[in-house]
Amino acid sequence: MTSTASTASADLLRRAEDGDIAATSMLMTALEADTDRAREIRTEVHRAGGNAHVIGITGPAGSGKSVLVGSLVRELRSRGKRVGVVAVDPSSSISGGAILGDRIRMQGLTMDPFVFMRSMSSRGWLGGVSRATVDVVAVLDATGWDTVIVETVGVGQAEVEIVSIAHTVAVVSVPGLGDDIQAIKAGLLEVADVHVVNKSDLPEANKTASELTSMLMLSMQDSGWNVPVLSTAGLEGQGVPELVDTFEKHLDWLRSSGEYDRRERRAAEARISATARDLLIERLRGSGENQGFVDAVDDVVARRRDPYDAALGLIASL
Amino acid sequence: MTSTASTASADLLRRAEDGDIAATSMLMTALEADTDRAREIRTEVHRAGGNAHVIGITGPAGSGKSVLVGSLVRELRSRGKRVGVVAVDPSSSISGGAILGDRIRMQGLTMDPFVFMRSMSSRGWLGGVSRATVDVVAVLDATGWDTVIVETVGVGQAEVEIVSIAHTVAVVSVPGLGDDIQAIKAGLLEVADVHVVNKSDLPEANKTASELTSMLMLSMQDSGWNVPVLSTAGLEGQGVPELVDTFEKHLDWLRSSGEYDRRERRAAEARISATARDLLIERLRGSGENQGFVDAVDDVVARRRDPYDAALGLIASL
Repeated sequence: MTSTASTASADLLRRAEDGDIAATSMLMTALEADTDRAREIRTEVHRAGGNAHVIGITGPAGSGKSVLVGSLVRELRSRGKRVGVVAVDPSSSISGGAILGDRIRMQGLTMDPFVFMRSMSSRGWLGGVSRATVDVVAVLDATGWDTVIVETVGVGQAEVEIVSIAHTVAVVSVPGLGDDIQAIKAGLLEVADVHVVNKSDLPEANKTASELTSMLMLSMQDSGWNVPVLSTAGLEGQGVPELVDTFEKHLDWLRSSGEYDRRERRAAEARISATARDLLIERLRGSGENQGFVDAVDDVVARRRDPYDAALGLIASL
Repeated sequence: MTSTASTASADLLRRAEDGDIAATSMLMTALEADTDRAREIRTEVHRAGGNAHVIGITGPAGSGKSVLVGSLVRELRSRGKRVGVVAVDPSSSISGGAILGDRIRMQGLTMDPFVFMRSMSSRGWLGGVSRATVDVVAVLDATGWDTVIVETVGVGQAEVEIVSIAHTVAVVSVPGLGDDIQAIKAGLLEVADVHVVNKSDLPEANKTASELTSMLMLSMQDSGWNVPVLSTAGLEGQGVPELVDTFEKHLDWLRSSGEYDRRERRAAEARISATARDLLIERLRGSGENQGFVDAVDDVVARRRDPYDAALGLIASL
């Protein structure tokens, strides 16, 4: 750690810790662009991490997550927390990933220097959680942000993999989103540390809450944490103070039960595996120029070999 | 191809081609359970494939995809097609993946020997499309099913990756599902070959259809295929014959434009890469027993090394 580059990286990190938002953004940009300094920065960032409470907020489209996140930010700020928000946005390249960020910005939170927000594309890596998202969370964690909220839209893989970066996962439901919601609830039951019925002023809110409670009882796992079902509503953030209390209670439980360490290990396993997978595939495909890979694709398209056979052959040639 | 095992596999395939549903299921089960015969079956199935029109139907929860798929099946049957339906169900292990299948079954289609349906869990592999799903589609393709419909629930990765197995992707929207829908539409614009506004009897249907049309004009790619916006409604399948006409037109275009071959290559690339990735990770983690991997996780959790460094070290040790 004597080179100029790593000294510069450590310096950038210190400036970010002191609240320099430009330095924070530079760290994130360097990691995302994978510049020469990315590797040192990643090392420094990882070394300095492990302090923030990372909260995943997930649920289907139309459940009002963005408004809820705005209320959460205000509540956390009133408790003196520095709050980072990372909105994972499925709109990908076309919208420039700006839709969710814009919406949060409209809630008048960006003037606060202790609120940091960023929208990320949802492609790739740990299911729907992109590598860039993981890096952004790591930078916030390493530079003094007390709470980092990761908001994901959609159902399925993305939500399941959010457990790889969040300590506490809240699954948001909303009354009357149609029949498919049953399927979603079932799929998300296993990842939720907290259930939130948002828009609880809608007619069928009680029904949704009691359905969730029943499903939770059926699938009861004896982890020592009873997954609560909370209700929230509206721009005024009704129920949000109780939700933040619950998040804090969950973090206390994680720490006292040893579950915190188990989740840290699970996150490390997921991140090492995903990185190794990326690096190996890069080598295998050789940025699309590896003749062995091109030949394998030819064989599969011509149905001379099946994909499994072709993959085995490529690995043997590594 | 002289061993008894491969002869048995070829025989099973022939029986499945002759319409023996039990044989079809046995092929799928053997692949999913990864039995000793899986490798021969995979080879035989891949060799015999490349005939079915694989149609992906995707869109957010609550858009009425399952009812629409039921109507599509009836329309395709009336045109004499053998139709397979694979519903990718995010409810995963808890519900046993049965919810969507149950719903389709209730529509009275399972008495028809030329309709095959299966629900699959959505975990893993090509984004939200599981390896088992890819195998089930391959078996149907290899055994004489003319059209295979793959229905996925949710937004984000799953839908994007569906392009890896479908020739034609229809994205289903529904009027008034809330603001997040904007984000979804943007994210799905790039994968849609056909847009469907379902429940088009709802008040804001025209608004949804014209918003979609505007977004399509803004992002216009000059591929030679003009992505149409169609409307469907109700249990009676209003608009469904036109939708099936459009699917057939799209397949004709794929074939005549050379895009069919490009998609076959893309699918092969995705399947080879995903398989190689799985095989490599298996070796790396050694089913959780590899001491090198355990040590790497220890180092990352203790913040002595970052995940990237740990992954590099593991790969070097392969």
